[in-house]
Amino acid sequence: MTTTQKAMTTQDVANRLVELMRMGQVQQVQEELYADDVTSTEPAHSPIPSATGKNAVMQKGAAFAAMIETRHGGSFSDAVVGGRYFSCAMTLDATFKEKGRMNLEEICVFEVKEGKIVSDQFFF
Amino acid sequence: MTTTQKAMTTQDVANRLVELMRMGQVQQVQEELYADDVTSTEPAHSPIPSATGKNAVMQKGAAFAAMIETRHGGSFSDAVVGGRYFSCAMTLDATFKEKGRMNLEEICVFEVKEGKIVSDQFFF
Repeated sequence: MTTTQKAMTTQDVANRLVELMRMGQVQQVQEELYADDVTSTEPAHSPIPSATGKNAVMQKGAAFAAMIETRHGGSFSDAVVGGRYFSCAMTLDATFKEKGRMNLEEICVFEVKEGKIVSDQFFF
Repeated sequence: MTTTQKAMTTQDVANRLVELMRMGQVQQVQEELYADDVTSTEPAHSPIPSATGKNAVMQKGAAFAAMIETRHGGSFSDAVVGGRYFSCAMTLDATFKEKGRMNLEEICVFEVKEGKIVSDQFFF
């Protein structure tokens, strides 16, 4: 980012995230939109633990992707935006290694600061 | 609820909540849709503390309403629904006693179990 560019608004970040998620580019979302000190919070019952820091969060994403044997389908909603936060609904129909086929449905909340995502949190 | 009625789905509860919120009937949302053991979670910096139990959550809502001198406007988005959770964006333009006029923007996440809201959480 040069000094002449303005930081992306929450709506800008939300639009870009939705665009990339619908193309299946989860890694690009994190690479491009996540802040270095991002925190990623999973519910207590999640098979994947929460993570802090961009590298750890990207490893967490990779660990989740590695659990998937076959992706059958999925969806990513438009975002609703409120101040520095936005949220989306996500579904994933996939066959997981060892666990078999499952339909995941969740709500994701993202926090934006100075044009970057500084936290995400998942509800399922 | 009689034994012949099915519990409302997450989408049903979301639709009813949005309908009532747009009519400004916050108290009715809690009365009608909240479970007895609901938890309501505010961020650490909120002027209103978190609350547990329907009575305490309704008192929390009343305490917030009592802080408002004049409501100038506001909005409540459609819900995005993912499994047992849904979320909405809310804005409120109001003059608060002592604090003056403020524009609040937030994301609200609701958790549904057996047709009732068992938790809400606010992000701002």
